[in-house]
Amino acid sequence: MTVPILKNYVQGKWFEGRGGLVDIASAVTGETVAKTSSAGVDFKGVLDYARHVGGPALRKLTFHERAYILKDLAKAITDKKEDLYKLSTETGATRKDGWIDIEGGAGTLYSMSSKGRRELPDDVILIDGAPETISREGTFVGQHVYTSRHGVAVLIDAFNFPVWGMLEKLSTALLAGMPAIVKPATQTAYLTEAAVRIMIETGRLPEGALQLVVGSVGDLFDHLIGQDVVSFTGSASTALKLKSHPRVLSEGVRFIAEQDSLNASILGPDAGPDTPEFDLFIKEVVREMTVKAGQKCTAIRRAFVPAALMDAAEAALKARLSKITIGDPALEDARMGALVSAAQCKDVREKIRELAGEARIVHGDIEDVEVIGARAKKDAFISPVLLRCDDPWGAKKVHEVEAFGPVSTLMPYRDLDDAIALADRGEGSLVMSVFTYDGDIARQVVLGAGAFHGRIIVINRDCAKESTGHGSPLPVLVHGGPGRAGGGEELGGVRGVKHYMQRTALQGSPDVISKIVRSWTRGAKTDAGAPHPFRLKFGELELGKTIETAPRTITLEDIEHFAHFTGDTFYAHMDEAAAKANPFFPGRVAHGYLILSFAAGLFVDPAPGPVLANYGLDDLRFLTPVSPGDSIKVRLTAKSKKKRNDDYGEVRWDVSVTNQKGEPVASYDLLTMNAI
Amino acid sequence: MTVPILKNYVQGKWFEGRGGLVDIASAVTGETVAKTSSAGVDFKGVLDYARHVGGPALRKLTFHERAYILKDLAKAITDKKEDLYKLSTETGATRKDGWIDIEGGAGTLYSMSSKGRRELPDDVILIDGAPETISREGTFVGQHVYTSRHGVAVLIDAFNFPVWGMLEKLSTALLAGMPAIVKPATQTAYLTEAAVRIMIETGRLPEGALQLVVGSVGDLFDHLIGQDVVSFTGSASTALKLKSHPRVLSEGVRFIAEQDSLNASILGPDAGPDTPEFDLFIKEVVREMTVKAGQKCTAIRRAFVPAALMDAAEAALKARLSKITIGDPALEDARMGALVSAAQCKDVREKIRELAGEARIVHGDIEDVEVIGARAKKDAFISPVLLRCDDPWGAKKVHEVEAFGPVSTLMPYRDLDDAIALADRGEGSLVMSVFTYDGDIARQVVLGAGAFHGRIIVINRDCAKESTGHGSPLPVLVHGGPGRAGGGEELGGVRGVKHYMQRTALQGSPDVISKIVRSWTRGAKTDAGAPHPFRLKFGELELGKTIETAPRTITLEDIEHFAHFTGDTFYAHMDEAAAKANPFFPGRVAHGYLILSFAAGLFVDPAPGPVLANYGLDDLRFLTPVSPGDSIKVRLTAKSKKKRNDDYGEVRWDVSVTNQKGEPVASYDLLTMNAI
Repeated sequence: MTVPILKNYVQGKWFEGRGGLVDIASAVTGETVAKTSSAGVDFKGVLDYARHVGGPALRKLTFHERAYILKDLAKAITDKKEDLYKLSTETGATRKDGWIDIEGGAGTLYSMSSKGRRELPDDVILIDGAPETISREGTFVGQHVYTSRHGVAVLIDAFNFPVWGMLEKLSTALLAGMPAIVKPATQTAYLTEAAVRIMIETGRLPEGALQLVVGSVGDLFDHLIGQDVVSFTGSASTALKLKSHPRVLSEGVRFIAEQDSLNASILGPDAGPDTPEFDLFIKEVVREMTVKAGQKCTAIRRAFVPAALMDAAEAALKARLSKITIGDPALEDARMGALVSAAQCKDVREKIRELAGEARIVHGDIEDVEVIGARAKKDAFISPVLLRCDDPWGAKKVHEVEAFGPVSTLMPYRDLDDAIALADRGEGSLVMSVFTYDGDIARQVVLGAGAFHGRIIVINRDCAKESTGHGSPLPVLVHGGPGRAGGGEELGGVRGVKHYMQRTALQGSPDVISKIVRSWTRGAKTDAGAPHPFRLKFGELELGKTIETAPRTITLEDIEHFAHFTGDTFYAHMDEAAAKANPFFPGRVAHGYLILSFAAGLFVDPAPGPVLANYGLDDLRFLTPVSPGDSIKVRLTAKSKKKRNDDYGEVRWDVSVTNQKGEPVASYDLLTMNAI
Repeated sequence: MTVPILKNYVQGKWFEGRGGLVDIASAVTGETVAKTSSAGVDFKGVLDYARHVGGPALRKLTFHERAYILKDLAKAITDKKEDLYKLSTETGATRKDGWIDIEGGAGTLYSMSSKGRRELPDDVILIDGAPETISREGTFVGQHVYTSRHGVAVLIDAFNFPVWGMLEKLSTALLAGMPAIVKPATQTAYLTEAAVRIMIETGRLPEGALQLVVGSVGDLFDHLIGQDVVSFTGSASTALKLKSHPRVLSEGVRFIAEQDSLNASILGPDAGPDTPEFDLFIKEVVREMTVKAGQKCTAIRRAFVPAALMDAAEAALKARLSKITIGDPALEDARMGALVSAAQCKDVREKIRELAGEARIVHGDIEDVEVIGARAKKDAFISPVLLRCDDPWGAKKVHEVEAFGPVSTLMPYRDLDDAIALADRGEGSLVMSVFTYDGDIARQVVLGAGAFHGRIIVINRDCAKESTGHGSPLPVLVHGGPGRAGGGEELGGVRGVKHYMQRTALQGSPDVISKIVRSWTRGAKTDAGAPHPFRLKFGELELGKTIETAPRTITLEDIEHFAHFTGDTFYAHMDEAAAKANPFFPGRVAHGYLILSFAAGLFVDPAPGPVLANYGLDDLRFLTPVSPGDSIKVRLTAKSKKKRNDDYGEVRWDVSVTNQKGEPVASYDLLTMNAI
């Protein structure tokens, strides 16, 4: 069989490296499965292409248009997933491991697409927060926004998740409107290349939005600028090298690092051997040791249990670990596959030897391993190794040295504060887990350890069935961690998108701010002329279109009537003396809901028309009480619009109810669904 | 007169440097006004003190308690402002310059204090966004939070705003619960020291929360850890040196840099010499050149005008500049004071000579200056210098070299795209301004230049009177910028606080999450027993306390009655055939406000009690239409609480209205004010 040569996808075409080919070996058989090189790639040209072709094309699309592209990419990967699973086996991954990578990757695209459509506007500017009051008269206002950075997202991935690792970064970069250059780890680049090929072949990506470099990045870093973002996943040493690059430092290139860390798991002091939490803890530690053969930057490296439970925990872990079969990941019987390469396996063995200076191996064998499947060569396989360290404060390496394989160290703690302090000795990690049924213990952990961990998962009997587990980053939650974990942050829905954008504070008149952000701001011009705004279809309705109603007087009879009709006979509406004694009211006042209802009666236009439904209301505040005899009137102004589908779209209206003195009575956003 | 020796405030006491004293000269007279040294300071001890004494003390306080401390610090500075003004004169600052620094500094404390009380909880954990759905059945939920970092905030300030520069950083760090070490620039350290002394003397700061180093930071950087934050304002070269420190890189220390930048101002293509915007532009450029003698990192360094208006703009600028009197800042007649030192003045002259290779000086004289006031020695004074460069694309230094004094360069542009591209040639700046009356032009500028600028201010006739100006960072708006400006971000209200905190994604059962964040989450346990929750005072009410009401059937008569009473005769409520034709309704349905009103009737407890008022409602969504004959019932649960003052506090209730089939009809947060 001919060994395929991987190609770079640069400047709009597939490009085979000019010499310097590197062999990539199968983790299972040791045979060469692909060759790769990026020699001859014009890296400055690649950056320029992204900046001058891909960036402008992506920035012309709205968030929603970009989100629909992500959905189509996800579909394409899902459709061809079996091709990817086949390649995945060669990386040492079982079907279950591959599922995390391949379907987890597609799922991330789907999730970000959905978030993009639901939480981002159908525009290119993202509004950040409410307008800020910065002047007395309101003629000068502040508004924060995010716009797409004008550079390139350089996405450097680790070997362990060649599909997911790319897509978790790519989904947010593309949604943010930034073109990307993907650089996979060489060991598993063939799987990334196949996934990129599937995405390019959809034809849905704008020219220049996605490029692929399979091999060294050459002098790419020498041409980075302040608008670029480097998002890196991998070892701390490589991260340090890259973020120390003179160009990264001098240009202020945004650098997002996600590094391996010494993640901890704590069995709560309340979780004795007879509790469900004890069993859940044992299962989770073993799962995290063996899934992906422990090659996960989120795996549990340090397992802490109450000192009295050390033996019980050790016994339970060993019992469970002994059931792990290891071998050719293509076989259904193999619970754990291979490490990515013989070199990686050798490195893991060396790291275990380092740890064994402070801890003793209580399960597993670093010299030999029993492997099932005829294809499997032993070089990249290793058995799960559990270490036990009884003096975690005297030890140092167990908190610093990561064996990136199926390896974990069991350690005792004295009390909860001690457990927290030990977890924090990892000096920053991606995730920690706590097994407790006690919410107060969980809070104490978050207060003591939150600053050291990007994610904290609390597992107990109530959530175990639905828990996604210690080691699984989710698209809607941030992934990353401080200190040793790199200090970066990815995903987290829209939070992850913002890393590829620039926040800017805008200042100006309400009119100008409204025009810029396409959202009417209080103080900006309104158009209160005919027709009634409810007569205008979604597409015809301009922001600022307003109705100012006639006034309506609210009588004591109205209040009494409303009270008896609705059953809301709260004393502030019914009892003059009691109402007067209330610190907020001058006497009996109208119900807030009566004001809302009368306001609707004032502005509504009853006949069928483009307004289909009132589907909600936001930020309602009652500002001045309404006494019997007061009259109210309403100003309702089209504030912003968001197309939902080809039939209708959401319209947000700014509503202000005032009394006969012009004082504000109520203020809110009204939400309607309007026909296109 | 004895020259005072500045003291460090470290490890809980005032400490005079052991030798190595450096003289600080008055900018006005050149005489020594103070001596300073940090020799002998134990920097590792200073860091440890902050970490082990200051940090824990601050983290025990809630955001509100910290906010009240800021308010008291602001008051103390305001009370002693005249002492500070006196010192400020010696830095070369006029009264107006000093106002920005001293009262602007106190104002920043006041503003952050107010933001902290209004926008942060009375707790130590800050909730970030709504809970995330991560399971089908809802037994496992996600929630992002921020907690205080466990390290030290090292605040390194520039010489130009010795009070404000410290306080804009300190206010956010303290509010976030991080202890701070302040390191002012030596030239003006005497003013910072005086301000620190005032704050320490209030006795309001917890031990270890604030330390001061007047002099070199010695080996402090060698002891930084991943939990620390360095926030730096100053030159790009010093920033580069500090952020390249091996310890900063290896530990992942968060580094916030705010550097000088080549800020641009654009006179819009619509703003001819006869427009108000033209005059506003001229005024603003001159103001930015002369306030603080141009020693502001936000000053306008590059002024762009339509090519045809070059001569008009030059003439107008020169006319205005010629009115600037220069001299002893203690004199009321002096419109502009001195640069901070003779050395700074020499540097500015050199930079102007560099610029003059590409541009010509059209106003000012770098060799000589006319100075008023007998005290004033000429060494640190310079006249405003306007340069003109007619080939901004051919030039390079005008976009790169900053003369940190009263210096600006006037340049032409061809069209708006050209102006934007020229502004972006600064490669990242803190602020740009645009003078236009056209909102579409403003939007185009934000789309083209937003990614390059931390703040964009659009000034025109509508907002000029209330505009705070091109060069003024505001506490509620972010301050910082990408690329050359350092890539950092400060202030922006709560945004600035988050830089000193760590975001963590929490996962767990709704019960556990509710306990951790002290906010009841859907799916968590409720207590629906007696008494009615409205019978409980603020302090007695526990989160999760619930009332589940009896059902009420909504009849067609109710709907008709409500319609005629309120005037809301929208066809969906009144006309069966028309309602059926609507894509959302099965036929005539109840008004949303009828549902809300009936819901209140169901849950309200009418007699006087702890609930004082319903002051609002958030996130209301109508989920399933209610047809005549349907019945609704309500679950209302105490979700979170926030004390407002000693008399009452806000309670947020989670409300769910369901129909007879258990389907969700409406969902919202109800807000009440409850007596303590």
